[in-house]
Amino acid sequence: MDIRIDRESAVPIYLQISTGIRELILSGKLPEGFRLPPERRLAEALGVNRSTVLSAYRELKADALVDSHVGRGTSVLPRTRPAAAQGVVPPLPWRQFVREGALAMQDPLLRDLLALAERKDVTTFSVGLPAAELLHLDSLRAVLDGLAADVGPQMLLHSPTEGLTHFREALCHLMIARGIRYSPAEVLVTSGSQQGLDLAARVFLAPGDAVVVEEPSFFGALQVFRRAQARLLGVPTDRDGMRTDVLEALLARQRPKLIYTLPTFQNPSGAVMSLERRRRLLELAYRFQVPVLEDDPYYELRYEGEPIPPLAALDEHGYVIYLSSFSKVLFPGLRVGWLAAPRPAARQLALAKQSMDLHSTTAGQFLVDRLIRGGHYARHLERVRGEYARRRDLMHEALTEEAPPGVDWTRPQGGFYFWCRFPDPIRQSQLLARAAEQRVSYLPGDACFADEPGANYLRLNFTFPPAEEIRPGIARLMGALRAVARRPGSGIHVGEATLPIV
Amino acid sequence: MDIRIDRESAVPIYLQISTGIRELILSGKLPEGFRLPPERRLAEALGVNRSTVLSAYRELKADALVDSHVGRGTSVLPRTRPAAAQGVVPPLPWRQFVREGALAMQDPLLRDLLALAERKDVTTFSVGLPAAELLHLDSLRAVLDGLAADVGPQMLLHSPTEGLTHFREALCHLMIARGIRYSPAEVLVTSGSQQGLDLAARVFLAPGDAVVVEEPSFFGALQVFRRAQARLLGVPTDRDGMRTDVLEALLARQRPKLIYTLPTFQNPSGAVMSLERRRRLLELAYRFQVPVLEDDPYYELRYEGEPIPPLAALDEHGYVIYLSSFSKVLFPGLRVGWLAAPRPAARQLALAKQSMDLHSTTAGQFLVDRLIRGGHYARHLERVRGEYARRRDLMHEALTEEAPPGVDWTRPQGGFYFWCRFPDPIRQSQLLARAAEQRVSYLPGDACFADEPGANYLRLNFTFPPAEEIRPGIARLMGALRAVARRPGSGIHVGEATLPIV
Repeated sequence: MDIRIDRESAVPIYLQISTGIRELILSGKLPEGFRLPPERRLAEALGVNRSTVLSAYRELKADALVDSHVGRGTSVLPRTRPAAAQGVVPPLPWRQFVREGALAMQDPLLRDLLALAERKDVTTFSVGLPAAELLHLDSLRAVLDGLAADVGPQMLLHSPTEGLTHFREALCHLMIARGIRYSPAEVLVTSGSQQGLDLAARVFLAPGDAVVVEEPSFFGALQVFRRAQARLLGVPTDRDGMRTDVLEALLARQRPKLIYTLPTFQNPSGAVMSLERRRRLLELAYRFQVPVLEDDPYYELRYEGEPIPPLAALDEHGYVIYLSSFSKVLFPGLRVGWLAAPRPAARQLALAKQSMDLHSTTAGQFLVDRLIRGGHYARHLERVRGEYARRRDLMHEALTEEAPPGVDWTRPQGGFYFWCRFPDPIRQSQLLARAAEQRVSYLPGDACFADEPGANYLRLNFTFPPAEEIRPGIARLMGALRAVARRPGSGIHVGEATLPIV
Repeated sequence: MDIRIDRESAVPIYLQISTGIRELILSGKLPEGFRLPPERRLAEALGVNRSTVLSAYRELKADALVDSHVGRGTSVLPRTRPAAAQGVVPPLPWRQFVREGALAMQDPLLRDLLALAERKDVTTFSVGLPAAELLHLDSLRAVLDGLAADVGPQMLLHSPTEGLTHFREALCHLMIARGIRYSPAEVLVTSGSQQGLDLAARVFLAPGDAVVVEEPSFFGALQVFRRAQARLLGVPTDRDGMRTDVLEALLARQRPKLIYTLPTFQNPSGAVMSLERRRRLLELAYRFQVPVLEDDPYYELRYEGEPIPPLAALDEHGYVIYLSSFSKVLFPGLRVGWLAAPRPAARQLALAKQSMDLHSTTAGQFLVDRLIRGGHYARHLERVRGEYARRRDLMHEALTEEAPPGVDWTRPQGGFYFWCRFPDPIRQSQLLARAAEQRVSYLPGDACFADEPGANYLRLNFTFPPAEEIRPGIARLMGALRAVARRPGSGIHVGEATLPIV
């Protein structure tokens, strides 16, 4: 059995394995009844985790190419006879109908992570969620009752694709407080910021188009750009955000369709792009004629220091599409976000949205509109800022006391995340498993990079876990880290090669 | 000035005109200061409406290629000098960044129609909406209060992309009542049925792929398939739904990726596909190995006669993706619909949705779940069925008394629409304008056809307008129709050719 693994490829390794074996079966090289190697043996031979081989075999089972029985291992199934020969209707090979480039696989690591986050006994540092317990449900109910009385059934009917007009006006006022001036006609209400990203990708990106992204960047955005079959051009970041000197060199050689950036309290790094770099980024966008996609969900969550204007506030020539959301500051489950863009771009984005879901939830727009106009939103922000600053300090202290020597991080001035760097790369799958045993979850840095593996980074969220869980959770996580770092073979050997196996 | 119009093209005519003129300007054939012909003269020369030329000129103005002044007409603007030459930042040519195939234009006719539907003094037969006044807001508020007490902040947080598990179970129960058996793992909650259509297009359709659609079909679906750059293969319908004999001949020659059908109370025709044809359609799908996309938002809205099982209930081999929604039976503004599909298809659709908007509104899912489990949904259905049957009868009587001779329609057994056919094609733009003067709106049949223009059809909705407005509204609409039909030049001359003009 000869299977080649390309560790640089965007295709997950388990999928490379299952594809390799599938081809061997379909070409007849592995005949009916052939026993595949036991998972552990194949894993060792390929230098991958057993769970990766397990996932690969699961894929093959789903395709009815192999079957496994306890004690007898996994063996190649007989080929089903052509249906026509016996008048039987064959099951539809659905996957063959998926268009090129659209066949997607969930990263098994992330799937496991999400499952872990749902467990009640786990301290969850892995998700980017606001603290649910800080919501004042009573005032929400009062607002809803008021809406039912004043607005009536209208709040359950269709609304314009662009969003309710008065809500867009309220959004323009929010943006003015950030120094950003767009008219309501340039605003589009979205079903969360994620939809804003997806809309931008759908309208602007053809397969093979290039997009500049920060290294690291928001995982959900990388996912959207990859699904659009775009080429990701990573630009490194430091404590002042995207390295504009590297960006300039890149723009001199490449012609990207978009520059994607999270300048304020970046996800995952927590970095804030300096004012000087922001100005420089815009100059480069103007010079090289590249639109900028600015993702700004954390703007209001500054716990200290002076705010720096968003790119959309500094832009004087209409080059910026601005995305923001209520998912991080109010609640994510309503799916209410927005984007603002120069008129011709806003128009195309609205027409794309129209055929995607007609419009975003009418009731949700009415609700957030009232929360803003009634001052609930401002009061809620005040409340969460105080509490989040406290949790950040708790996490900073816990890390200071518990982290092994060499672990490095920056105390963020706002946002949701600590971004921790280890001196040596570790096998994230081993650390995740050990952390899960210790009832604590985090986001492995790998997921946040376009090009380079981020095997020595962890992202830790401090807003969602209750304050009293932060200290013990960090202690358990750092214990797991020490245990994994000590184990032989846990490090990643740079330069690991593709292994031909037999 | 030589402009060619292709009336068979999917590109709106005003856009063909503006593109033609743009090319003449950019190539230098129309120099700076050149006066374009007055709108009326160009309209006459091209044999189009003045409003079409107006829209074309508006496009050119938006692109800063021409400008117009009262008394001086429309003339070609000077070219802006290259920015580099003077250090000025040029405005970003956003449209040039839109990827090939994604540049969309709103049909100006539909835009006007939607604007019309918002006027309070207009009797609206044009939209596919439920009656808002039949909602019991008090019971809704009680359910919401109960949720806030029992579920708490959880209802405002993230939920799985596939949808809340208990809600998917409730949807499976709804489907069992329709004879359809899917497991919760095969169900995906969507942001309305529109998103279900969009998801199917995104996962399965590459540019150039063929999709079978009924003639006529749902406008919003045609729009989705066109945006996916699919080829639409129209199959004619009659009172028993899609003509499966024509479908068979078509499948013998073409290999479509999907067969899209609305078998029950079709939008716009109101037709119900016979049981025999449903069986035949599935046989053909099996024989030619084509997945079926069944759109079934009106199933519960039967006012008389026995229900016929959906295709998804008759399908024994997993060939059907089933779409349904609460937008027609409860309220559209929450954006809660669902799809059910065999596991491999459901999985791919869920992964696509994940990167599109993460998940549909959590609160909306909790709300509809409770409405179903608490029996509110069943009682609401009971109530609206009675009232909609009454409105249908009112419209049928009004048409019988008011329609000019030769106008033809079928009294639907359920759903939302009357589909009226005139003996001679009329200019829809003229009738729409005259109807608007008479404060009444309808949907022109044109929008519902993939290939053939439906210039002698109107779709009339009877569920949204208040009962007392139906009779006078139909009387005014039929008056407008008589007036337009009498006017010379209102008919459409089949075989109208491309006109070269100078």
